[in-house]
Amino acid sequence: MTGGTIYGVGLGPGDPDLMSVRADRLLRTAKHLAFFRKAGRSGQARRIVNGMLHAQVTEFAMEYPVTTEIPVTDPAYNAALSAFYTQCTDHLRALVAQGQDVVVLCEGDPFFFGSFMHLYTRLKDDIPVEVVPAITGMSGAWTATGQPVTWGDDILTVLMGTLPQDTLADAMSRSDAVVVMKIGRHIEKVKSALKTAGKYDTAWLIEYASMPNQTVQKLADAGDKITPYFSIIVVHGQGRRP
Amino acid sequence: MTGGTIYGVGLGPGDPDLMSVRADRLLRTAKHLAFFRKAGRSGQARRIVNGMLHAQVTEFAMEYPVTTEIPVTDPAYNAALSAFYTQCTDHLRALVAQGQDVVVLCEGDPFFFGSFMHLYTRLKDDIPVEVVPAITGMSGAWTATGQPVTWGDDILTVLMGTLPQDTLADAMSRSDAVVVMKIGRHIEKVKSALKTAGKYDTAWLIEYASMPNQTVQKLADAGDKITPYFSIIVVHGQGRRP
Repeated sequence: MTGGTIYGVGLGPGDPDLMSVRADRLLRTAKHLAFFRKAGRSGQARRIVNGMLHAQVTEFAMEYPVTTEIPVTDPAYNAALSAFYTQCTDHLRALVAQGQDVVVLCEGDPFFFGSFMHLYTRLKDDIPVEVVPAITGMSGAWTATGQPVTWGDDILTVLMGTLPQDTLADAMSRSDAVVVMKIGRHIEKVKSALKTAGKYDTAWLIEYASMPNQTVQKLADAGDKITPYFSIIVVHGQGRRP
Repeated sequence: MTGGTIYGVGLGPGDPDLMSVRADRLLRTAKHLAFFRKAGRSGQARRIVNGMLHAQVTEFAMEYPVTTEIPVTDPAYNAALSAFYTQCTDHLRALVAQGQDVVVLCEGDPFFFGSFMHLYTRLKDDIPVEVVPAITGMSGAWTATGQPVTWGDDILTVLMGTLPQDTLADAMSRSDAVVVMKIGRHIEKVKSALKTAGKYDTAWLIEYASMPNQTVQKLADAGDKITPYFSIIVVHGQGRRP
């Protein structure tokens, strides 16, 4: 019996119409599907593919053992996640050994942040893993603003809201265009860093880019409402243009 | 008679299978197609859609009046390009006024560098323009290396090879992951900047990402061969991973 293949399939920003032709085909023909989600939730990745799947598909929900209960700096956080990823890959390996192909859902682009890469590094040396790139969430976000993000020689810097405030402000001030992801409860720190860098007034906040509940507004107009984890902030470059 | 719409359609890195479902559908049903190319060339964007088009499609090739003959700092460069873009948009406006939809081909993602944005800004206030985002060339490039580009809190900086060497070296040294685009004849300057930043030995050179003639190699192994304009250099981040 020949072994199967793991497909790490990028879903893009959320609109199924923005998936790649290859992702669309792999999803519609998948017999085994795996995806990450928080315990007790349906999961954003799984929701995106609603209505696209084969009726007999077998689903493997990989539920994170921790999210924010343990600080990422605590060794217990890494230990819990590492054990979790090993448990997930054991299951995937068993399916592949039985000759099954498995499609693993990845929000955004699989090699640009995200959890799939933790499975990938544990599997790639032993079994066939194919990665299908996708439109990034940030691309969905800047498209939603109706303005190009970079022109001419603009420098683009992509930052996580989890970084220290000084690091954020310094990187923002040295860049033309800026993207901030993983904002969530870091929103006030990110706002302060943007102010220090002189980019607060030109920053946009995009929530649920490309999805039916998409919102696009100037960050300064967003007020104090708490933004979900998958909000993205975009500051457009203003580089050379004829 | 109702007017038409301009569709700025991102083609992604080059493999037609990596176009979005929406792009694929728009291309296969397009009656009017427009694309940029160098005079006397078939054009990379047009080549990507070979075999996908309707037999009766009308094609409008927009040929750049200058490329490297005039330095970008010379006002004559901007003047020539500005006149060119106006001429292109006049033609597109006339088609839209006749009720025709026009698909404009964009390599990579339309709002991430590229020429489409120069048409977009000239058209968007008067006529309907829809932008279809796409997988960026850089995403095709890092996927081709078989290694995730960013982990945890990594900072990613995207730089154009056309920037001054000091600017490049400074930005590279402050970032975890680095992407360099528009390399072409700037390759030696980019190499020097990577060496100053201590990132030369871990840099990868990807040519024609996702296309049949794709090459992936360590930059240090690429030797002195001249790289085409659409080569991309990737330095992977090495951030937190459980």
